[in-house]
Amino acid sequence: MIRAVVWGENVHERENPIVAGVYPKGLHGCIADALNAADGISATTATLQEPEHGLPQSRLDETDVLLWWGHAAHGDVSDEVVERVVEAVWGGMGLILLHSSHFAKVFKRLMGTPCNLTWREAGERERLWVSARQHPIARGLPDHFELEHEEMYGEPFAVPEPLETVFISWFQGGEVFRSGLTYRRGAGKVFYFRPGHETYPTYFDPNIRRVLVNATRWAHNPEARQSSDWDAPNIDVSDALEPLEHRGAKLHKEGDAGFQ
Amino acid sequence: MIRAVVWGENVHERENPIVAGVYPKGLHGCIADALNAADGISATTATLQEPEHGLPQSRLDETDVLLWWGHAAHGDVSDEVVERVVEAVWGGMGLILLHSSHFAKVFKRLMGTPCNLTWREAGERERLWVSARQHPIARGLPDHFELEHEEMYGEPFAVPEPLETVFISWFQGGEVFRSGLTYRRGAGKVFYFRPGHETYPTYFDPNIRRVLVNATRWAHNPEARQSSDWDAPNIDVSDALEPLEHRGAKLHKEGDAGFQ
Amino acid sequence: MIRAVVWGENVHERENPIVAGVYPKGLHGCIADALNAADGISATTATLQEPEHGLPQSRLDETDVLLWWGHAAHGDVSDEVVERVVEAVWGGMGLILLHSSHFAKVFKRLMGTPCNLTWREAGERERLWVSARQHPIARGLPDHFELEHEEMYGEPFAVPEPLETVFISWFQGGEVFRSGLTYRRGAGKVFYFRPGHETYPTYFDPNIRRVLVNATRWAHNPEARQSSDWDAPNIDVSDALEPLEHRGAKLHKEGDAGFQ
Amino acid sequence: MIRAVVWGENVHERENPIVAGVYPKGLHGCIADALNAADGISATTATLQEPEHGLPQSRLDETDVLLWWGHAAHGDVSDEVVERVVEAVWGGMGLILLHSSHFAKVFKRLMGTPCNLTWREAGERERLWVSARQHPIARGLPDHFELEHEEMYGEPFAVPEPLETVFISWFQGGEVFRSGLTYRRGAGKVFYFRPGHETYPTYFDPNIRRVLVNATRWAHNPEARQSSDWDAPNIDVSDALEPLEHRGAKLHKEGDAGFQ
Repeated sequence: MIRAVVWGENVHERENPIVAGVYPKGLHGCIADALNAADGISATTATLQEPEHGLPQSRLDETDVLLWWGHAAHGDVSDEVVERVVEAVWGGMGLILLHSSHFAKVFKRLMGTPCNLTWREAGERERLWVSARQHPIARGLPDHFELEHEEMYGEPFAVPEPLETVFISWFQGGEVFRSGLTYRRGAGKVFYFRPGHETYPTYFDPNIRRVLVNATRWAHNPEARQSSDWDAPNIDVSDALEPLEHRGAKLHKEGDAGFQ
Repeated sequence: MIRAVVWGENVHERENPIVAGVYPKGLHGCIADALNAADGISATTATLQEPEHGLPQSRLDETDVLLWWGHAAHGDVSDEVVERVVEAVWGGMGLILLHSSHFAKVFKRLMGTPCNLTWREAGERERLWVSARQHPIARGLPDHFELEHEEMYGEPFAVPEPLETVFISWFQGGEVFRSGLTYRRGAGKVFYFRPGHETYPTYFDPNIRRVLVNATRWAHNPEARQSSDWDAPNIDVSDALEPLEHRGAKLHKEGDAGFQ
Repeated sequence: MIRAVVWGENVHERENPIVAGVYPKGLHGCIADALNAADGISATTATLQEPEHGLPQSRLDETDVLLWWGHAAHGDVSDEVVERVVEAVWGGMGLILLHSSHFAKVFKRLMGTPCNLTWREAGERERLWVSARQHPIARGLPDHFELEHEEMYGEPFAVPEPLETVFISWFQGGEVFRSGLTYRRGAGKVFYFRPGHETYPTYFDPNIRRVLVNATRWAHNPEARQSSDWDAPNIDVSDALEPLEHRGAKLHKEGDAGFQ
Repeated sequence: MIRAVVWGENVHERENPIVAGVYPKGLHGCIADALNAADGISATTATLQEPEHGLPQSRLDETDVLLWWGHAAHGDVSDEVVERVVEAVWGGMGLILLHSSHFAKVFKRLMGTPCNLTWREAGERERLWVSARQHPIARGLPDHFELEHEEMYGEPFAVPEPLETVFISWFQGGEVFRSGLTYRRGAGKVFYFRPGHETYPTYFDPNIRRVLVNATRWAHNPEARQSSDWDAPNIDVSDALEPLEHRGAKLHKEGDAGFQ
C-alpha cells in the first residue's frame, strides 16, 4: 500500500466562494479522494493551517509520496518544514508538484532555478499531449485530452532540463507549456504536473485523476528511506579498499571531520 | 574577450604554510594566471575577505564566467552574495565550481541536492578519463591523464543527473568519481570539476590548466545577460496571441500581479 | 508475473571447455535461474542456434523483458530478427544488454553510436560503485561491491548520454567504466550492464543476480504493447481538433499517405 | 570559417511548380544563401542527384556542419552514403536535420527510434516558443515567433529524450510539437529543427534564418575529426596503467583482436 499525503494550502477553498463551491472538501480533499479510489494507494491530507503544516518529521517518515498544491501562501510555509520535505525527497520520498506549486518553496529549492512562466486566467481550453507515449505516468491515457477551462501557463518555463518530458500543453490563446516533467533529486522522484487552477473542476476530470494515480505509483520508491545524513564521510587511509599509504602533504589531521 | 573572475576563499593560502608554499599567489591567483595565458580570456580575482566578497552586483554584471574555489569557509559566504551569484547564473553568467566547492552554497543552491560524497586525503594517484570524447571541455586532451597526488572524492556523489558526464576519475585507493559534469540553470552554463586539493600543485598541471581554459570558453554565453526579473508575468486576455474571450470563473482581478 | 526471456549466443559454452565448466547450463541458463529464483518473474531462454534465434514474433509478443548476452557471433544474428527485437522495444518490451552485448546489433541499432570501448582480459579486480543511490536497479545493494576476476572495459564508451548512470566500475589496472546505463527508446526501457565475461563465474555472484532481478523489474512496462505501426498518420483538415480551413499552397492531395 | 554543406533532396523543386516558384534556387540554395550571409560561415550545396549524392568521403572530411533537407526520396539515399555521414557525425561533424528529414535515414540511424509523428498540410499558423531561453541556438530571438503558413507536425514525436528542448511549436489546429531538439552522437552535435515545408517560404523568414545560422555555429566542433576507427582496442596486460598480472581463466589468446 502506497502511503500518500496530499498537502493543500487550503486558503482559497475557505475564503473564495467560487473555489469553495467547486471544491467543498478543498483541493486536497478532492485529490485525496482520487487517490483513495485507486488500488494500492492510501491517501490522507495535510494543510498549511495545521501545526507544522501537518508535516511533522514523524509523518514524513511514513509518507511514500507527497502531493503539493499551493498558490496564495507560498511565503507562509516555514523554512523548517521546507527543509524537512526536501530532505525526505533526498532520502527517497516521492514528490508531486501541482499547478501553481511551480512557485512553492520546496520546488524552487529542489530545482535551483526561478521556475517562472507566463500566465493568464481566461478559462480557455487546454489540450494536453502525451510526448512520452506509454510512460508509466501516461498509462491508459489517449495521445491527447482536453480541459475546457483552465488557466494558461506559458513557456519559457525556467526549470532545469528534465529527465523526461511526459506532457506538453496547447492553449487556446496561443501558448504552449511543458506540463509534465520528471526529475530525480537524491533517491526521490519528482514530478511537476501543470493543470489544476482552483476555480475550475480540473481535479474531477477522469484523465487528470488517472495522471495523479499513475504519478503517485511512479514516484513511489519502495526502498527504505535513506537516513538524513548528508555529510561527506572521511575514509581513513587504513580503511582504503586497495592497499594504500599516505603520501605527500596533508591538510587534515587524523579524525578530522572535514569542512562543510 | 571573455571576462573571467576567479573567486578564492583565500583562507588556507594565508594560514597554512604548506598551501602558502604551493600557491604563493593563492589558488585564485594561480588559476587566474592559467586563464590569462590563454587567447581571448581576461581573468581577475576576488576573495572572501574583500567587501561583498569582491562580488558586488556591478562586478557580476561585467563577469562572463565565474570560477569558484572554496573549502574551509563555505559558511562565511553571505547569503546575499550567494543569491546574487545564483541570479547572475540564471541570467547567463557561466559558473565553474572547483573541487571542494561541491559544498559551496552557490552549488548546493543551484543543484537542489546535498552534493555530498566520500573523501580521503592520502596523496594518492588520480587518473581522469574522458567519457565524452571531443567535448569542448575535453578539447586537446588525451583519453586519460594522471595527477600523482590528489585528495580522493568517491561516489555516490549526490548531484542531479548531469546533462553530460565529461570526466570520470579512478583513484588508487579503489574509488571512482564523476569528475566533470555539465548543467544548465536558466541561461547559465554550470560545470563542476573535481581536482584541486590545496596541498598539491594540481592547478599548475598542464592538462588541468587546459580544462580550466576549455571550460571557461564553454561556459561563456555571449548573449546579453537576462534581466534579473524572475516574476511570472500576467498576459492579459486582450493581449492574447490568438482571439480569446474570458470564460468561466475567475480568481484574479484585472491587473492582479499574481501570487509569488 | 513478468515474462522474461534470456537470449544467449551459446557459442563459447559449447566450444570452450573453460566456459562450459563455469556455465554448464550456458550463460543464458544461469541467468534464467537467477531470475526464476525471484518473486514475480518467469524466465525462459532462447539461443542463436534455434530457428529465428528462438525469437519469432509470436514469442516477442509475449515477452515483457528480453535479456541479451552475445559476444563471438554478433554478425550471425539475422537482420530480420534484429529489426523485430528493435520494434518490440519501441512498442514497450524491456531490453537488458549484458557485457559484450555492447557490440550486439540490437544495441548499436538502438543507440545510433559505435558503442566501442577498450578492453583487457586479465582476470583483474572490478569494483562497481552505485552512482544513483536507491535507484530501483540498485535496490538492496551496498554502495560498492567487488568481482575478484573480470574482464576490463574502459572509457571512452561511445554511447549517447544516458538518462541515468547507475553504476561506475573501477578496475585494478587503472581504468573506469560506466557500467550501468539507462535509456528509453519509444515505450521500451533499455539497460546496459557491463559485467559478465564468460570465463568467470560473474552471473553466480549474489550482487550481480540482484541487479539482474532489479533491472528486469525496472524494465517491465505493464502497458499493452504498442502496435508495430511507425508510420506518420495524416490528420485531415476536417479532423482538426480546432476549427481550421485549408490555406495556401499544397503539395499533398487528399488522402495522400505521405513520404516515408 | 565554418564549412557548411547544405544537402538537398532537390526533387520537388524540380518537379512541382509551386515549390519551384517559392524556391527557384532549391531549398538547399535558399538555406545556403542564409548561411553565407552570416559572418564566419561558408556554405555550399550538395544534392541527391550528384554522384554519391554530392557527399564523397573527401568532401565530408572537409565539412564542419552538414544541413539535411529531404522528403520524398529518403529511400533513394544509398546506405553507403548514410553510413559515411553517420561516421562523420561520430567523428565530430555537426548535423542539422530539417523538417521532413525526421524520416531521413541518417536521422533514424542516429536516433535508434521510429521518429514518427502526425502531420497535416493545411497552411495553418505555427508559433514557435523558446523553451531554453538564451540557448546558443535561440540567440537573438524573441520568446516566440510565428510562421503564418506551415505544415503541422504533432506529438507524440518518437525520438529519444533530447539533451535539450530548445523550441516547442503551437499549431492553429490544436497540436504541439518539440520543434528544436539537441543530441550528441559521438563527437558530433545533432540538432533537429522542425519548420520548412517546401510549399511555404519558411526558409526566407528572418527568425528561421537566424536559427539556421545559430545552429550551424552551435553544431561546429572545432576539434580535429576523430578517425573513423570504431573498433574496441585490446589493452595488453603489459601495457596496463597500474601494475597488473594476469590471473584466472582466459578466452582470448595473445594479440587476439576481439569479437566485433
